[in-house]
Amino acid sequence: MPDIQLVIVGSIGIDTIETPTEKREGILGGSASYACAAASFFARTGMVGVVGTDFPSNYVDLYNHFGICQEGLQTEEGKTFSWSGVYHENMDDRDTLDTQLNVFEHFAPKLPASYIDVPYLFLGNIHPSLQLDVLNQVSNPTFTLVDTMDLWINISREELDAVVAKVDMLTLNESEARLYTDQHHLLDAAPALLAKGPRYVLIKRGAHGSVLFSSSGDIFIIPAFPVRHVNDPTGAGDSYAGGLMGYLAQQDDIREDTLRNAMMYGGITASFGVEKFSLERLKEINRADLDDRADTFRKMVDIP
Amino acid sequence: MPDIQLVIVGSIGIDTIETPTEKREGILGGSASYACAAASFFARTGMVGVVGTDFPSNYVDLYNHFGICQEGLQTEEGKTFSWSGVYHENMDDRDTLDTQLNVFEHFAPKLPASYIDVPYLFLGNIHPSLQLDVLNQVSNPTFTLVDTMDLWINISREELDAVVAKVDMLTLNESEARLYTDQHHLLDAAPALLAKGPRYVLIKRGAHGSVLFSSSGDIFIIPAFPVRHVNDPTGAGDSYAGGLMGYLAQQDDIREDTLRNAMMYGGITASFGVEKFSLERLKEINRADLDDRADTFRKMVDIP
Repeated sequence: MPDIQLVIVGSIGIDTIETPTEKREGILGGSASYACAAASFFARTGMVGVVGTDFPSNYVDLYNHFGICQEGLQTEEGKTFSWSGVYHENMDDRDTLDTQLNVFEHFAPKLPASYIDVPYLFLGNIHPSLQLDVLNQVSNPTFTLVDTMDLWINISREELDAVVAKVDMLTLNESEARLYTDQHHLLDAAPALLAKGPRYVLIKRGAHGSVLFSSSGDIFIIPAFPVRHVNDPTGAGDSYAGGLMGYLAQQDDIREDTLRNAMMYGGITASFGVEKFSLERLKEINRADLDDRADTFRKMVDIP
Repeated sequence: MPDIQLVIVGSIGIDTIETPTEKREGILGGSASYACAAASFFARTGMVGVVGTDFPSNYVDLYNHFGICQEGLQTEEGKTFSWSGVYHENMDDRDTLDTQLNVFEHFAPKLPASYIDVPYLFLGNIHPSLQLDVLNQVSNPTFTLVDTMDLWINISREELDAVVAKVDMLTLNESEARLYTDQHHLLDAAPALLAKGPRYVLIKRGAHGSVLFSSSGDIFIIPAFPVRHVNDPTGAGDSYAGGLMGYLAQQDDIREDTLRNAMMYGGITASFGVEKFSLERLKEINRADLDDRADTFRKMVDIP
């Protein structure tokens, strides 16, 4: 079997999601699910995560559809992590209704031997101590990206700082960047985040795209592909990061020109993902669809 | 004297503006002031507007500094229009504290003979019946842009429709586009706006840039230049539109490639404008400063 090019750790959840127009129960979610599916269009991706003995076999089939390596997927006695949320009318804001950690509560990630030498590593949004645990198990990665959220900034700042100090790139959204640095403006928050260690800080702005800040001082701004009907924004950031890291792993190159293209492909992958619930839309498309939309996008942003 | 390349009609006001950090009284404002100053970096610009006999001579000097033709600037007995507003902590939202129409109440724009054959016309944000009045006085413009606001959409929709039906481009912000069309999503609102007549609809998204929708179906998305210290966002949309129209008038070309560059220059001009109150920052810069920042911006958005 060919070597794994990218390892992704994150949550695997059974979600119940309510939007202004639809409610779906028991669908596959979690940062690792979205990120691995997105990455799989570009690179051989190995998943690290945990599910309970109740994890439906059709979701395993779905992972297999994407060709996701599940050697690092642990199954533990008990129920799979579950999350339930409801979106506001604007489809941007949401409220969490319920979170059941279940088997995730005592998750201790253990990387299989085939993952240890992996060149690209994405630490999806889970507790920073678990992210650090995974980071410490890989031998010498070429490029590592870490995602996080307001919860960990609030309750586990020290562990988060420890992870951030060791990775190549940190990604978070604008409000999290403000929370983490106490700086209102992005142009002040970004240097404060870079000072924590990473060479790059990638700020996600949802429907407004993303901004890359480099320790060299370079800034790259890219809009989002305009999606007509966003049916479920859950996992958009995970798909974005998964697509980005998958593209980097496929190119096996981390120069800034490649990073810019990786961000474009991350955004394009996410733009498909939000068109349907869970992984339903990603399941329908292939790499050629991503390339087609990327071509359309390039024309949309070109300044002649 | 060389021919006027661009005519701009709009308000001229004496503003009192309060931001979270500073309060300034009696400063020069109004859509025509911002738009004409911005346009003057690119093209010979003629102003259409009205001031009272109290209008300070140093503001006339300021218009002269920018080389703005004031042949279409009427002076009427009474006080100049004044506006007072206060910005919220986020510097995006603001509340109007006071509006005194004064001489603006009975303003009847009368274009001087030298303006009649002007090829480029910007109808800045004033009552649509005044915009229509100006539009009907020019002979055969190459390209006309109209700006508007929620107030006119709410109270003068029919007059606004009449103007919009006759121009080449309509510009407004996202919430105004929703209000005007009753469509929540931009991708639904834009076709509804194009159906009113213009060939282009330009949606302003403030710090997130702007989007151009063409009746051909083309979409152009451009981010905003990231400004570290926004000290006064007043007039940003007017500077943007003024810079855009000035660039078009200078190029005397309205192909979409040129429009895209015009939007970039509009955004760059506005990015300087918001760095200080009133026209203070625009007064300090020249065309070379705009070109330098445009070069920086191009590098920031380039996808290699």
